[in-house]
Amino acid sequence: MNIALIGLGNMGLGIGQNLLRAGFSLAVHNRTQAKAQPLLDQGAQWAASPREAAAGAQLVLTMVADDNALLAVCDGAEGLLAGLGQGAIHASMSTVSTALVERLAARHQAQGAVLLGAPVFGRPDAAAAGKLFIAAAGPAEAIEQARPAFEAVSQKLFVIGDKPQEAALLKLIGNFLLTCVIEGLGEATALAAKGGIEPKALVEMLTGSIFNAPVYHTYGKLIVEQQFEPAGFTVPLAAKDNRLVLQAAEALNVPLPFASIVRDRFIRAQAQGMEKQDLSSISKLARVDAGV
Amino acid sequence: MNIALIGLGNMGLGIGQNLLRAGFSLAVHNRTQAKAQPLLDQGAQWAASPREAAAGAQLVLTMVADDNALLAVCDGAEGLLAGLGQGAIHASMSTVSTALVERLAARHQAQGAVLLGAPVFGRPDAAAAGKLFIAAAGPAEAIEQARPAFEAVSQKLFVIGDKPQEAALLKLIGNFLLTCVIEGLGEATALAAKGGIEPKALVEMLTGSIFNAPVYHTYGKLIVEQQFEPAGFTVPLAAKDNRLVLQAAEALNVPLPFASIVRDRFIRAQAQGMEKQDLSSISKLARVDAGV
Amino acid sequence: MNIALIGLGNMGLGIGQNLLRAGFSLAVHNRTQAKAQPLLDQGAQWAASPREAAAGAQLVLTMVADDNALLAVCDGAEGLLAGLGQGAIHASMSTVSTALVERLAARHQAQGAVLLGAPVFGRPDAAAAGKLFIAAAGPAEAIEQARPAFEAVSQKLFVIGDKPQEAALLKLIGNFLLTCVIEGLGEATALAAKGGIEPKALVEMLTGSIFNAPVYHTYGKLIVEQQFEPAGFTVPLAAKDNRLVLQAAEALNVPLPFASIVRDRFIRAQAQGMEKQDLSSISKLARVDAGV
Amino acid sequence: MNIALIGLGNMGLGIGQNLLRAGFSLAVHNRTQAKAQPLLDQGAQWAASPREAAAGAQLVLTMVADDNALLAVCDGAEGLLAGLGQGAIHASMSTVSTALVERLAARHQAQGAVLLGAPVFGRPDAAAAGKLFIAAAGPAEAIEQARPAFEAVSQKLFVIGDKPQEAALLKLIGNFLLTCVIEGLGEATALAAKGGIEPKALVEMLTGSIFNAPVYHTYGKLIVEQQFEPAGFTVPLAAKDNRLVLQAAEALNVPLPFASIVRDRFIRAQAQGMEKQDLSSISKLARVDAGV
Repeated sequence: MNIALIGLGNMGLGIGQNLLRAGFSLAVHNRTQAKAQPLLDQGAQWAASPREAAAGAQLVLTMVADDNALLAVCDGAEGLLAGLGQGAIHASMSTVSTALVERLAARHQAQGAVLLGAPVFGRPDAAAAGKLFIAAAGPAEAIEQARPAFEAVSQKLFVIGDKPQEAALLKLIGNFLLTCVIEGLGEATALAAKGGIEPKALVEMLTGSIFNAPVYHTYGKLIVEQQFEPAGFTVPLAAKDNRLVLQAAEALNVPLPFASIVRDRFIRAQAQGMEKQDLSSISKLARVDAGV
Repeated sequence: MNIALIGLGNMGLGIGQNLLRAGFSLAVHNRTQAKAQPLLDQGAQWAASPREAAAGAQLVLTMVADDNALLAVCDGAEGLLAGLGQGAIHASMSTVSTALVERLAARHQAQGAVLLGAPVFGRPDAAAAGKLFIAAAGPAEAIEQARPAFEAVSQKLFVIGDKPQEAALLKLIGNFLLTCVIEGLGEATALAAKGGIEPKALVEMLTGSIFNAPVYHTYGKLIVEQQFEPAGFTVPLAAKDNRLVLQAAEALNVPLPFASIVRDRFIRAQAQGMEKQDLSSISKLARVDAGV
Repeated sequence: MNIALIGLGNMGLGIGQNLLRAGFSLAVHNRTQAKAQPLLDQGAQWAASPREAAAGAQLVLTMVADDNALLAVCDGAEGLLAGLGQGAIHASMSTVSTALVERLAARHQAQGAVLLGAPVFGRPDAAAAGKLFIAAAGPAEAIEQARPAFEAVSQKLFVIGDKPQEAALLKLIGNFLLTCVIEGLGEATALAAKGGIEPKALVEMLTGSIFNAPVYHTYGKLIVEQQFEPAGFTVPLAAKDNRLVLQAAEALNVPLPFASIVRDRFIRAQAQGMEKQDLSSISKLARVDAGV
Repeated sequence: MNIALIGLGNMGLGIGQNLLRAGFSLAVHNRTQAKAQPLLDQGAQWAASPREAAAGAQLVLTMVADDNALLAVCDGAEGLLAGLGQGAIHASMSTVSTALVERLAARHQAQGAVLLGAPVFGRPDAAAAGKLFIAAAGPAEAIEQARPAFEAVSQKLFVIGDKPQEAALLKLIGNFLLTCVIEGLGEATALAAKGGIEPKALVEMLTGSIFNAPVYHTYGKLIVEQQFEPAGFTVPLAAKDNRLVLQAAEALNVPLPFASIVRDRFIRAQAQGMEKQDLSSISKLARVDAGV
């Protein structure tokens, strides 16, 4: 299967390496060409544009920062849609709005191609290790065709439904719950600290008992060590995802009180110069409020 | 080691059975004697009062509903403190206020006894299986003396600190985080449902990936199946714990915005006749608000 | 002074009548011509398009529903900007986003015209009585030129600053505070009712003492009488303004926790079929939650 | 009518002066005798204890800090209840819990006396000027008997109901709404400031239009001038009232989301050393969060 990969940031790079390791023929494109070098060294072919990458690929994977970036990749004379062939599949792995996915799906369909929503859970280290989780939605047949590629880069593939925007929504929900874990731990460690309990003891208890999940391990550790730079995922990016989930929820008339609390944390963090910190840094604000 | 156990509800019963299985000599007391029968059948001795239970025991375990019940057990001519010998240890396993634990600790110390905070995580089935988690705090030596009993009823013992109220606080924090998981899942499943995603698919994705912890499995299942009766832990009991964590936090000047959101859920649930339902039933309110 | 008025809904109609009463020469335009009849009967001239209305006017007032409507009025071959002459003033009296006002101001300036932000406080009865409050911002000279028209339709004119978007922001802030009054009264009357106090007695006490302001009189009465239809200002319109203030605040990195609470009320109201009710109907939700 | 007044702080002093001015015979008592001097100079008689003050009075007014202070005044051999005669009236003007008022009412009734709830709105300057507002509840006949005294110290008397705790609740609700005004203005001025609008211009617009009520004038001015010391009413006292309204609401199963937001503001203010500041100082926190 000829695969194209567009978007070679921290996440895309790991995905590309695992595709190459699995023996796929891989064309790659990125706005900044220099980032492609590690993959070219491993045998990938450079494509000068999204159009060129898509032309001749049976499966195009995109992994970009946000709605604007995905639109920029898809649109225009040199865009992905200009190159995508009849029956080809575009699996969008980025975290983007449900509204955009819904609109793009119609445009793919109109030209005989297929859009899959295939966002991932996992930070750059999981991408590098081929240990992502993928939530895929779209036509079942297309998901099956893309499965070998998905399996090469993930430890588990979840099939969510037959509309690609459902996967986009599920990803936003997952990120929302992740920020709930961070805020919860922020409040919990603030209270623990003022009550004489070491945050480390608290997190060990939690992760050693009924909260024994990767999210609590990963974010519990960051919060205990107060190590928020370098960021795995910055505050503004997380704020964007928070905005997207609130927009999706508003469009469906769903109040999300926890998401509103988290929203105010992100806004406040940005008002106070924390733009370069990891999203888990919002946990500090509960401590600040408590005078820890 | 002679052990006494006071409080034979769903949790106490399981604890008692595991102590007997482990070969400890066990005296038991409960306000309603009938509940003691299964343990008496397995070899426990009946004690007519907390005082009588405590007399002659090196370790007294109490597992009761709330502050008032614990005070009722400790106080008075027939109370635990009237019977507790020099050097004896009282391990309070109930979820109670930090303020009460602090006050009781001083009273134990004044008569040459020791109070440990030793609250547990786990529902009645975990108690029956000897699979509780225990968070113990208090004088290190006393914790070591009590360790064999703790190990007989738990899968893991966490030593938190040297003041018993620290364990009480940690338990309240744990319960707080658990309610955050429930509220988060309530909001998440409401949004998923309105967006066309089966709550079951959402929960499977979560528990199959980075949210793979017992709390998400246990409560995700209850929420997906909307099965809130019979209750493992009722709304009013959970509301009490929420009140305790907010009081402890207020005494330490720690704002807990998530706990306030959850507080309003519990109050609303009680205003609407949900007193007999499991605490996880508050997840319904997010769906109601979304018109699911 | 030749004045044009575009947008003849409940608010625009009252404004137009007061301009005519004050003796101004008035051209009017509305998407639906029929609504113009009362003003034409009083001597206004019909203009077939925003462009035609603007041509020859020294001052154009617009009073439309939202950003899209204002853009539709301004843009295109038949739009307001196509007709607006050198040195002419456009006073936007609608409640719209600060971002749109900022963009439009630049476009006006580029063609030698001036945009004023001049949103109003008051419901249709105040517009009919010429008793609106106007918050104006923009170049001081232009405000002075428009003053006679503003005074003909209002009881008071506040000059806020020299950038038109400041008036737009101030209007959003005012509407935000108004929704805080409604939510506050909703919670307060729910508590009063459950505590045996007639909501009417509560509101009389408030408005007879330190809360003696029109907002408490107006909304207190609606809430006491639970009369939410016909709506003076519907839930979806108020939800739109709430969205605008949250967007403006987000752009400026300002958390608004009260606005988030109100946001969830509006979303919930819309999830439950309250779209035709007055914005004050969100006060019911506090009562519903309390089981009143 | 012989009147006794117990509690001679900022508020009680003003009340006493107006009673003397109106010609009432007045016995006074205060924990610290020195504070009574201004009233003794104007003709009041010193009573050595609450009991002595109550003995011989047809009407006893109490104006103390909180529940504990009111209980301390009422209880014991030298307490108010020990002195209060058959048919005498005790009007409690303090802001205290509804639960305490309900309990005390029963004790008054049991000895043939009457308790009125008669809390006041207004700050010390209003007390000094005889311009308080009084919300009275209890047996109608007793309210009429006390009316001349109430009128001597207030500009308006509101009769709320026939149970004294209803007045206590109404007072708590009024204070709650007042804190909503403060928080609302805090958020509003933070947003205005970041958007280029002078907080002063905002407050002038509000108080010059539909928010033209004493609360907005009083607190708007304090917030614009950022003058929070000396405090008219300190953060810890306001936090206490917030606690009382939340407790009353919890007992009646009424969620109050706005009160929870305000609660976190008060807790945070106390965590950050603002105990001596006026309650309006919590408005600063919205500005801090916005990085103003």
